[in-house]
Amino acid sequence: MPKSPSPYDTHLDKNPANYQPLTPLQFLERAAWTYPDRLSVIHGGRRMTWAETRERCHRLADALAKRGIGKGDTVAVMASNTPEMMELHFGAPLTGAVLNTINTRLDAAIVGFILDHGEADVVFVDREFSGVMREALASAKVRPIVIDIDDPEYDGPGERIGESDFEAFIAGGDPGFSYRAPDDEWDAISLNYTSGTTGDPKGVVYHHRGAYLNAAANAITWSMPQHPVYLWTLPMFHCNGWCFPWTIALQAGTHVCLRAVRAKPIFDAIADHKVDHLCGAPIVLNLIANAAPGDRRDFDHTVKIMTAAAPPPPSTLEKMEAQGFDVTHVYGLTETYGPSVVCAWHEAWDDLPPADRAAVKARQGVRYAMLDGLDVIDPESMQAAPRDGETIAEVMMQGNIVMKGYLKNPKASDAAFAGGWFHSGDLGVMHEDGYVGIKDRSKDIIISGGENISSVEVEQVLYRHPAVSEAAVVAKADEKWGETPCAFLEIKDGVTAPSVEDIIQFCRKNLASFKCPRHVVFGPLPKTSTGKVQKFVLRERAKAI
Amino acid sequence: MPKSPSPYDTHLDKNPANYQPLTPLQFLERAAWTYPDRLSVIHGGRRMTWAETRERCHRLADALAKRGIGKGDTVAVMASNTPEMMELHFGAPLTGAVLNTINTRLDAAIVGFILDHGEADVVFVDREFSGVMREALASAKVRPIVIDIDDPEYDGPGERIGESDFEAFIAGGDPGFSYRAPDDEWDAISLNYTSGTTGDPKGVVYHHRGAYLNAAANAITWSMPQHPVYLWTLPMFHCNGWCFPWTIALQAGTHVCLRAVRAKPIFDAIADHKVDHLCGAPIVLNLIANAAPGDRRDFDHTVKIMTAAAPPPPSTLEKMEAQGFDVTHVYGLTETYGPSVVCAWHEAWDDLPPADRAAVKARQGVRYAMLDGLDVIDPESMQAAPRDGETIAEVMMQGNIVMKGYLKNPKASDAAFAGGWFHSGDLGVMHEDGYVGIKDRSKDIIISGGENISSVEVEQVLYRHPAVSEAAVVAKADEKWGETPCAFLEIKDGVTAPSVEDIIQFCRKNLASFKCPRHVVFGPLPKTSTGKVQKFVLRERAKAI
Repeated sequence: MPKSPSPYDTHLDKNPANYQPLTPLQFLERAAWTYPDRLSVIHGGRRMTWAETRERCHRLADALAKRGIGKGDTVAVMASNTPEMMELHFGAPLTGAVLNTINTRLDAAIVGFILDHGEADVVFVDREFSGVMREALASAKVRPIVIDIDDPEYDGPGERIGESDFEAFIAGGDPGFSYRAPDDEWDAISLNYTSGTTGDPKGVVYHHRGAYLNAAANAITWSMPQHPVYLWTLPMFHCNGWCFPWTIALQAGTHVCLRAVRAKPIFDAIADHKVDHLCGAPIVLNLIANAAPGDRRDFDHTVKIMTAAAPPPPSTLEKMEAQGFDVTHVYGLTETYGPSVVCAWHEAWDDLPPADRAAVKARQGVRYAMLDGLDVIDPESMQAAPRDGETIAEVMMQGNIVMKGYLKNPKASDAAFAGGWFHSGDLGVMHEDGYVGIKDRSKDIIISGGENISSVEVEQVLYRHPAVSEAAVVAKADEKWGETPCAFLEIKDGVTAPSVEDIIQFCRKNLASFKCPRHVVFGPLPKTSTGKVQKFVLRERAKAI
Repeated sequence: MPKSPSPYDTHLDKNPANYQPLTPLQFLERAAWTYPDRLSVIHGGRRMTWAETRERCHRLADALAKRGIGKGDTVAVMASNTPEMMELHFGAPLTGAVLNTINTRLDAAIVGFILDHGEADVVFVDREFSGVMREALASAKVRPIVIDIDDPEYDGPGERIGESDFEAFIAGGDPGFSYRAPDDEWDAISLNYTSGTTGDPKGVVYHHRGAYLNAAANAITWSMPQHPVYLWTLPMFHCNGWCFPWTIALQAGTHVCLRAVRAKPIFDAIADHKVDHLCGAPIVLNLIANAAPGDRRDFDHTVKIMTAAAPPPPSTLEKMEAQGFDVTHVYGLTETYGPSVVCAWHEAWDDLPPADRAAVKARQGVRYAMLDGLDVIDPESMQAAPRDGETIAEVMMQGNIVMKGYLKNPKASDAAFAGGWFHSGDLGVMHEDGYVGIKDRSKDIIISGGENISSVEVEQVLYRHPAVSEAAVVAKADEKWGETPCAFLEIKDGVTAPSVEDIIQFCRKNLASFKCPRHVVFGPLPKTSTGKVQKFVLRERAKAI
């Protein structure tokens, strides 16, 4: 019974009273209005309130605007997890500019590439990284304004290289800079480069709408109450700290900054500041689980930890739970604003034996509250895999917390969005209960005698060996089989190192024989700044065997 | 340094992979996918899981679609808080139709007006209200399909008047009806008529975007964890139950339905089902606070209550807190999807004496997490009132949880949105701490000798009188002063009734003398279905004095 024109579409248009662009910048305004005197930031001896944080962000925006920074400009930053880094998440976009956070572990050549590709107009640089930045600027074509961040908590080497430092810069800004929403919620808010292990890094563009929604989804998915005390064990340069700079403003919580991720300061922050939430790569969990007794502190509250990247090994998860940590496993990519999939917990799983409980928790899970689609799909046919826990296909996402696209890279953007789904490049299965389990990166799968071997599956078996602390498995070329698995292992301190034969025997008992490693190498694993094992390095090493 | 065209706007367009319309219908899909076996609904002896609820909603959508219902059509419902009423919040919009929930206390003439104005294509009617609906349909011009809701929990009078009942109707629907997002997040999702005390009711149109955002804002503002057990003490016909039918799906919680709001079933639900969240008008709080000992049950968890409408009297708030209830005071209008303002709590207020604590809690507060603007503004100059707690002006809102507009009423829509703000019609002040306090509805303010008197202020004093259980103050025409306050009071059971003179003396001690009531009337107060005192009735009574 169609009515035309529909009364529901007649004289019911958008206007400023009933439509405003979604933006996480609003969360700062609200926190400062509602809780001006609450602690926003703890960093060493520094303490700030939400009123002060807002004032500093507005001064920063005004100082940038006075230098001509505005819509569509790029404000780059290479910094540790300091208050200034968090403030840039508001101050830069308040001007309409785009915040480009740069991984602090990168070398000068890549940093130079990023500055040029992102067309940086301003660069903020933490004194710790000024050496690399100076070199990067020397090689780059762009000539950005350079401002130092000279953190009193940092007493290591590194010169100031900018025209002024952060405090002097914002002192020239007017705290009365008026808040202005973006023109459109689709406007870019930030630029995050992928690690680029296979070619030049790609610039992932986020928009205000997605940042707003994933900031809210973090709170909802994690049942995060108002006023969390959040410890920065995850680099803010990584997917904008999974959107938590904005989530903590939404929840009027407290940021506890941390320059270096070590066990003692983590336990100190938990005991002294009552930190109740933190995020991190599995390496952070390992640090906590295996902390020396002298680094530990007692605490009597629960600390919720969100972890991503490689599934945490069951043994680590077990240890953490016993120590009063509540671990949530999430999964995502730079392209999905950080976490967009969560291993949503079922109370019935509480009763599983610890190893089984860890095994279900190690799965990646279901879509985040504000992701619209998640499935395991054959990229050729675009057909969804059956819910059998076995059929391997590509994990794909759909919705508002998928990036705007890759900057100045239409070909990569089109490929990523082919068929109306974002192609994650990760291979996984759909379990019978609707939970996704990642089996591998497309490029990490091992094909042996025509059979697919999931390197993650082999690694999970290796993690169960009592002497193994970390494991990584890659393909090694083989004349007969095409490829065979090659295992790289770190052995725990203070235990008797097993032999290669011990390891292979252990695998034989727990895996189909074609999946067992043919080569086993002991020694430290090479890792990225976010704690991911660098498999491309291991592949080179495997070649050399 | 503008770049034109900006690289941030080039080949970074919306596509199905990175943009989907916001809609709360997604929340049902996710709850059923992630927690198919969790309890979604408890109603008397009935129990349903999220998988079953989804199946019923999809069957309902398919059955409607088979009858030609689709985009822009109107599905009306007049029902108690039953599972079917909740299911209609998903099943009707899944077809693209708009859900029109009708207040069950209305008379046949107004219901007939609503059916005609909203151009109802289908009407679902709870057997309890079939008498009124039959009469309304007889007088209405529209000839909708009529379906009965014959709730097994209802054993009172009332005939079936439809062509079939709900269960038979959805039995004809295919559970494989495929989920489809709305074409546009701006599409209408529901239609809610205002009470219309001053003329014909106005049809407030909500869209998918606003329903999605306010459903999420409820969870965030209330620090609601996953899996709440939510008791339906608020009518679902009122602002779509403040968006909680959608919030509970987002949180994969449990709806505990309730046909009649009485103390005993409320306490039973809290004790038996571990209800931890409920909403309601102050009348619900009074019921709980003043429940007879035989109606009470012990429980050892905290029950969070959200209440709106008139500020709860301090004495009621005190009682509730002592009994283990944690009361949050919110404020909103039909035009703002229900609650859009919250008296956000400060820990420092915990230490106030009980009466002072109740007084700060009785203020309306600050904007909801997903409201963009809230201020107290002079409607003539559109200037914000100073933060002095004294200057009375109109409370106005701005943002995505403000209605799409009034259906087929461009004049009222334009007036409501004049100057780019939604005009609430409520008068209030901005306190020094940025919290809004409502002083009155525009039409409830009393103007005596040229001075504005807030009827709420006088009522708050009256509530402090030990014998008063409820108080309402309205203007009475006066030759000399223009208007004077006239008080209507209900006296507590079992106390000695005070005299008129006692009351006036009590007011003199606590109020400027021009604000004291000149007339005092004892007796029960007339109320709307949502527990609001019907001041227009009292004004008529005052005239007759």
